[in-house]
Amino acid sequence: MELNFEKAGGLLPAVIQESGTGKVLMLGFMNAEALKKILETGFATFYSRSRERLWVKGESSGHVLKVRDVLVDCDLDTLLIVAEQVGPGTCHNGYHSCFYRRIRGEDLVEAEEPAFDPAKVYGSTSTSSTSPDPGKQQARNRGGNGDA
Amino acid sequence: MELNFEKAGGLLPAVIQESGTGKVLMLGFMNAEALKKILETGFATFYSRSRERLWVKGESSGHVLKVRDVLVDCDLDTLLIVAEQVGPGTCHNGYHSCFYRRIRGEDLVEAEEPAFDPAKVYGSTSTSSTSPDPGKQQARNRGGNGDA
Repeated sequence: MELNFEKAGGLLPAVIQESGTGKVLMLGFMNAEALKKILETGFATFYSRSRERLWVKGESSGHVLKVRDVLVDCDLDTLLIVAEQVGPGTCHNGYHSCFYRRIRGEDLVEAEEPAFDPAKVYGSTSTSSTSPDPGKQQARNRGGNGDA
Repeated sequence: MELNFEKAGGLLPAVIQESGTGKVLMLGFMNAEALKKILETGFATFYSRSRERLWVKGESSGHVLKVRDVLVDCDLDTLLIVAEQVGPGTCHNGYHSCFYRRIRGEDLVEAEEPAFDPAKVYGSTSTSSTSPDPGKQQARNRGGNGDA
């Protein structure tokens, strides 16, 4: 098995599809180490370009993705991960899927209802109740593709 | 609507999901022009990095993708295109989906049956019956993510 990690600078795009519903939840990037981790642990793991380290989806929120199947495309440069969503949703903005908006003319309109309150989920690890909330702020700063 | 085309050098990854079945068919890349074309024509159109031009999926094979919905992720840097697959499949290797193999240990194993004979589909435009078949060769050389 020789995946083409070089084509995209060491990182392959990985589509996450929910098992059962078939819903596309997010897209992340994986290096060889992240893929190895997935196959070992069974939890979706990505490489964060901004933080320059591996991160396990759900490491802050508990909304992990249990991997059920790993597929590869014809060019060996894209992954399709079928996974079970633990918890109400993938997106750090509080939706089931990161693709919660559709294009309508020049506008974006909501394509699904919010699934949870991100302030409660990402604020729950904070040890301080004063404002500003450093735990919440940290989760916010991470941003990106359910990167929490 | 401000998509983040700059993040990935002017190109956004676009996941293609089949309407009805929910099957993930392929992943391609789109620049702003390709997205404009999709919204105008209703047919999935990508930017080919190797050929440095727009290409309409199915322009050789006739296996076009009729776009039914265009969704955007939370970071505005990934597209999810829901489309109707015209013809038996997306993949230039003769499968319904480009993700026709799964990882099993160190190996790749077939995850679905072939849907059509690529030699017949991509060879049918050739004006010569002698070998080598220039039409087929051209289709082969294109390669990549159902790039035909």
